[in-house]
Amino acid sequence: MLYFKSDYTEGAHPAILEALVRTNLVSQPGYGDDCFTAAAQEKIRLACGCPEAEVYLLTGGTQTNLVVISSLLRRWEGVVCAESGHIAVHEAGAIEFSGHKVLPLPSHAGKLCAEELAALVERFYADETHDHMVFPGMVYLSQPTELGTLYTKAELEAIAAVCRRYEMPLYLDGARLGYGLAAEGNELGLADIAALADVFYIGGTKVGALCGEAVVFPRGNMPPHFATMVKQQGAMLAKGRLLGVQFDALFTDGLYFEIGREAVALAMKLKKAFVQKGYPLFLDSPTNQQFVILTAEQEARLAREAAFERWEPVGDGCYAERFVTSWATTEEQVDALIALL
Amino acid sequence: MLYFKSDYTEGAHPAILEALVRTNLVSQPGYGDDCFTAAAQEKIRLACGCPEAEVYLLTGGTQTNLVVISSLLRRWEGVVCAESGHIAVHEAGAIEFSGHKVLPLPSHAGKLCAEELAALVERFYADETHDHMVFPGMVYLSQPTELGTLYTKAELEAIAAVCRRYEMPLYLDGARLGYGLAAEGNELGLADIAALADVFYIGGTKVGALCGEAVVFPRGNMPPHFATMVKQQGAMLAKGRLLGVQFDALFTDGLYFEIGREAVALAMKLKKAFVQKGYPLFLDSPTNQQFVILTAEQEARLAREAAFERWEPVGDGCYAERFVTSWATTEEQVDALIALL
Amino acid sequence: MLYFKSDYTEGAHPAILEALVRTNLVSQPGYGDDCFTAAAQEKIRLACGCPEAEVYLLTGGTQTNLVVISSLLRRWEGVVCAESGHIAVHEAGAIEFSGHKVLPLPSHAGKLCAEELAALVERFYADETHDHMVFPGMVYLSQPTELGTLYTKAELEAIAAVCRRYEMPLYLDGARLGYGLAAEGNELGLADIAALADVFYIGGTKVGALCGEAVVFPRGNMPPHFATMVKQQGAMLAKGRLLGVQFDALFTDGLYFEIGREAVALAMKLKKAFVQKGYPLFLDSPTNQQFVILTAEQEARLAREAAFERWEPVGDGCYAERFVTSWATTEEQVDALIALL
Amino acid sequence: MLYFKSDYTEGAHPAILEALVRTNLVSQPGYGDDCFTAAAQEKIRLACGCPEAEVYLLTGGTQTNLVVISSLLRRWEGVVCAESGHIAVHEAGAIEFSGHKVLPLPSHAGKLCAEELAALVERFYADETHDHMVFPGMVYLSQPTELGTLYTKAELEAIAAVCRRYEMPLYLDGARLGYGLAAEGNELGLADIAALADVFYIGGTKVGALCGEAVVFPRGNMPPHFATMVKQQGAMLAKGRLLGVQFDALFTDGLYFEIGREAVALAMKLKKAFVQKGYPLFLDSPTNQQFVILTAEQEARLAREAAFERWEPVGDGCYAERFVTSWATTEEQVDALIALL
Repeated sequence: MLYFKSDYTEGAHPAILEALVRTNLVSQPGYGDDCFTAAAQEKIRLACGCPEAEVYLLTGGTQTNLVVISSLLRRWEGVVCAESGHIAVHEAGAIEFSGHKVLPLPSHAGKLCAEELAALVERFYADETHDHMVFPGMVYLSQPTELGTLYTKAELEAIAAVCRRYEMPLYLDGARLGYGLAAEGNELGLADIAALADVFYIGGTKVGALCGEAVVFPRGNMPPHFATMVKQQGAMLAKGRLLGVQFDALFTDGLYFEIGREAVALAMKLKKAFVQKGYPLFLDSPTNQQFVILTAEQEARLAREAAFERWEPVGDGCYAERFVTSWATTEEQVDALIALL
Repeated sequence: MLYFKSDYTEGAHPAILEALVRTNLVSQPGYGDDCFTAAAQEKIRLACGCPEAEVYLLTGGTQTNLVVISSLLRRWEGVVCAESGHIAVHEAGAIEFSGHKVLPLPSHAGKLCAEELAALVERFYADETHDHMVFPGMVYLSQPTELGTLYTKAELEAIAAVCRRYEMPLYLDGARLGYGLAAEGNELGLADIAALADVFYIGGTKVGALCGEAVVFPRGNMPPHFATMVKQQGAMLAKGRLLGVQFDALFTDGLYFEIGREAVALAMKLKKAFVQKGYPLFLDSPTNQQFVILTAEQEARLAREAAFERWEPVGDGCYAERFVTSWATTEEQVDALIALL
Repeated sequence: MLYFKSDYTEGAHPAILEALVRTNLVSQPGYGDDCFTAAAQEKIRLACGCPEAEVYLLTGGTQTNLVVISSLLRRWEGVVCAESGHIAVHEAGAIEFSGHKVLPLPSHAGKLCAEELAALVERFYADETHDHMVFPGMVYLSQPTELGTLYTKAELEAIAAVCRRYEMPLYLDGARLGYGLAAEGNELGLADIAALADVFYIGGTKVGALCGEAVVFPRGNMPPHFATMVKQQGAMLAKGRLLGVQFDALFTDGLYFEIGREAVALAMKLKKAFVQKGYPLFLDSPTNQQFVILTAEQEARLAREAAFERWEPVGDGCYAERFVTSWATTEEQVDALIALL
Repeated sequence: MLYFKSDYTEGAHPAILEALVRTNLVSQPGYGDDCFTAAAQEKIRLACGCPEAEVYLLTGGTQTNLVVISSLLRRWEGVVCAESGHIAVHEAGAIEFSGHKVLPLPSHAGKLCAEELAALVERFYADETHDHMVFPGMVYLSQPTELGTLYTKAELEAIAAVCRRYEMPLYLDGARLGYGLAAEGNELGLADIAALADVFYIGGTKVGALCGEAVVFPRGNMPPHFATMVKQQGAMLAKGRLLGVQFDALFTDGLYFEIGREAVALAMKLKKAFVQKGYPLFLDSPTNQQFVILTAEQEARLAREAAFERWEPVGDGCYAERFVTSWATTEEQVDALIALL
């Protein structure tokens, strides 16, 4: 079976496993006070060009969204996001369970639009009864989005400008950030993101780690008592080193970026093949997630030899399907899939 | 430096790392639907003698307590525990953050007393105004306790009987269960615990894993939609295999029990040396945590070459100190520490 | 100044004040265990034709929505409602603060559509990843709606049928129910509502009481420990009699219905005058809330002598405006307003 | 039957009902923006000698505790109180339901001790692991206490000093404040309380109102967006005037103080009679709640003609019993009860 179902179907990049083995017997304090975490934090600060950044390592994506959002929002505030945003759909209501409303805006191939964001906020403050409503307290977006698309620099700047005007922190979910950084035409490096976002995370789980996401507060703006809130939500590992060792490895010798480049190159090869063979794209993604339209018959035939994900029906008995590459995808697998098309 | 500070200061038992390396490239579904998790679940069912048990793997101890307790309690209920219980003290109010009161009872060397539990519940229901109070909805205890002590079979049976009389689920926190199972004189095997508790967890993080705790619902009594609640609290790993592979390894060829036996044997050797050299014990623990009383001078001298934890002042300028062994402790380290006494 | 701003700008119907004065010195137990509450409950059961109904009196509308919804939903569930629903907009995120997502559907002049409801639920259960999503756990609607409109019997039956098919309780917010019951052409009496809804409330605050809403569980289906949950949310009055006396008065000699009839008659007179004088209606409401479109100039002129509420801009410099009648509105006031048009 | 069961078994002081009748038809905005609320706020500011105080009217005691405490605490904080405190026992876990731990200290006839409070806070900050614990974030106490006792000025000053040293707001629950202000020997007037507490409430429900508690932030220190949080917890009345009219009446011509004086005078007469007839006091209360020890036989006999509350067993088959006076108690009733002793 050829696996293109997601970027979390194998273990970890071999360099990460090696690092875990190599450091295994070094005795270190728990709860993230270990030397590996410190090294990872420093390397991430360097990669972001933010010497004053504060970095906190967490375990998974939903956990990170939950901890960050519920730590930043005040009680009367909600978080604005695209209606396709992960927190709005696929996190089992985690944000609401923590007491906050998700305020949805239209999704444009997964992206928020700065004008619509500004309009929402202006309408809110213009409403005389807004004290009876949920305040727009922060903005959430994903880069790449859940649909593999990317914000341009101008788009993110426009959103960040609205956020600053209304004092709403801008939070960027980088679950697959490595694949965005490596995309052809990507305009937003780590330093750009650090300059525009108030907090973001560099995804590890989907970019080569066993688990782990690195939250970055680029201007030393971590909320007070953040660690206590992490603990309060059950998100603190006793062996914090597990995250430290992995991110230390990911940010040594550019491994994080290399993983992204290789997976994206394979995704582009696959996309080109789909297009050349006449399969319509559901949308044009420059990152490791590719969305193609198959007929039911094509889906059934391919599914006999490849694992991929039915995304949604698109009418006429056809379906948008998702094919994903990762650090674990090989050129042989891509070629074999192409041969099946 | 000789490390006796805790049982989470090194990585994982080598057999676990080996298993992670060996399985790394096997493609498997995410979110715990992988074959390694299935194998681990089956081995745990066997070890507990509970073919109908439902097993769910989570990442850490506070997370597990939070998810289990908040999934089992109904809105009007709180959880009874010893005032020294981990959930009552060192989890940053996680249970309260999830909406529930922790109802404390006196701690007897870390243990609940069945009579005091019964009295609390009887007093509650006898109170005419109890509809205005928090219902005692479940009981939490640790085996071994936070102080390294163990419940006898009769003690746990008595508590379980009170729980059944009042229909309160009994939840056993086994963060260090492996060290309890291996203790000399321990009367409570996995099958006994499975028979008496309504839910318990087999701790991995402190017993050789990088992370991971195995929640067991011994009578197929996992609450409906448990996975959704896990997701809702940010506790579901995309690469659930990370937990599956580790517990599969821990329950292969009795590794979990062997880790416990070796660490406890070293702890007993250390305790014996303390006693022989005239150090008073703070309490008599049969497990991997040893509590000894040192003068400030003794503490300062030992601390130059060994890492251990000051537990609490006991008067006269003396302190209870905690020394912990684990799978990573070697006989050489114990001998070196003894030589310092 | 002629007051048409809302139906909560005066105190209480005189018969209610009289009842409060008359019963003032009767000593009765607190917390709703008084004889007046018992009498009110019995009269409401009679009025609904539900001898087995359980009735609980609460203080205000948002409080009632919050208590009822958060008591009925299970942790993994959210509440479906029209995007114009009061809980979705004007309750400051109370439902989310209690841990639950509001799942919005399009508003059709304030109303839910049964087909869209069914489609939402079907799409949810058809989604393979729905365990990672918020379950549609109950349905909320208002009768009359926030826009003064009414469900027909067929519409409510269709929605109730979807609710039953998917085991979602149907909750009807009757903040202004008295004005709906009295509307010309209304097809849904209390007995119909009791037959179709699983829980509903009969609004008092906006229909002549100082405060108070009567929650009805028509088939004895009040959740267990409901009173404890009421207390837990700070919603239990020590002097529960305050609510009991008022609802006893409202359901004595048909006062509740009479209040509705008189206010609606005046609203119809006003609507007729608007139409006759050529003012366009924003929508056609048969109840005590009337929505008319005014130019900015008309608004400014009228506002000098009458209080009403600007609802929303409708383009071309015009505004939808709300005019509300109540038990306190007199024919003289309506005539005076008409004279100004 | 002679009613001494509580101070909420009748309606309202006649002057309050009169005010409700008198103001009934005055049209005023909702949600507390009415002229009666404004007048009440101003009179309360005057009575407290705090021109800059912010006053917010809420409906009931548990609601007030819930709203105030959950608005002031930050996520990582809990509230310290005596283990007999109302929030710790009889509010169905409302504080925990809002996400916060109640941190209990010993009760000394219902009162906190400043030294014990200081010790708790010092121990907390001295603990190296306190980031894993619940921070003591504010202090709650009742004046009079749940046992009718009063803090002296020196006692409250000592507690306030600890609060200031550690930047913990001091919150005083004045559910029965009127009866404390009127007690012989009371050292704490409204101005003293306003000077020492950071927030307190003046209880209405138990001191002559139908419902209502006035929250006072004496130094203009109401938290931002307090009204939105009130709404979010379902605690905002549409007809806020109901509370405004009542507090306006209570603070006109000293009615609030007069109600206290009369009820306390009757309570003192009753206490004197108990003592003279040889009944042992459970404790010596100077306010409207009296606690006396009765044998089971005495209890049974008295209960045939009087309603009072069994408080708790005190051994030897005897019970502490509570007798309460209020604005509604008459001298005739007290004399009749005394005649039964």
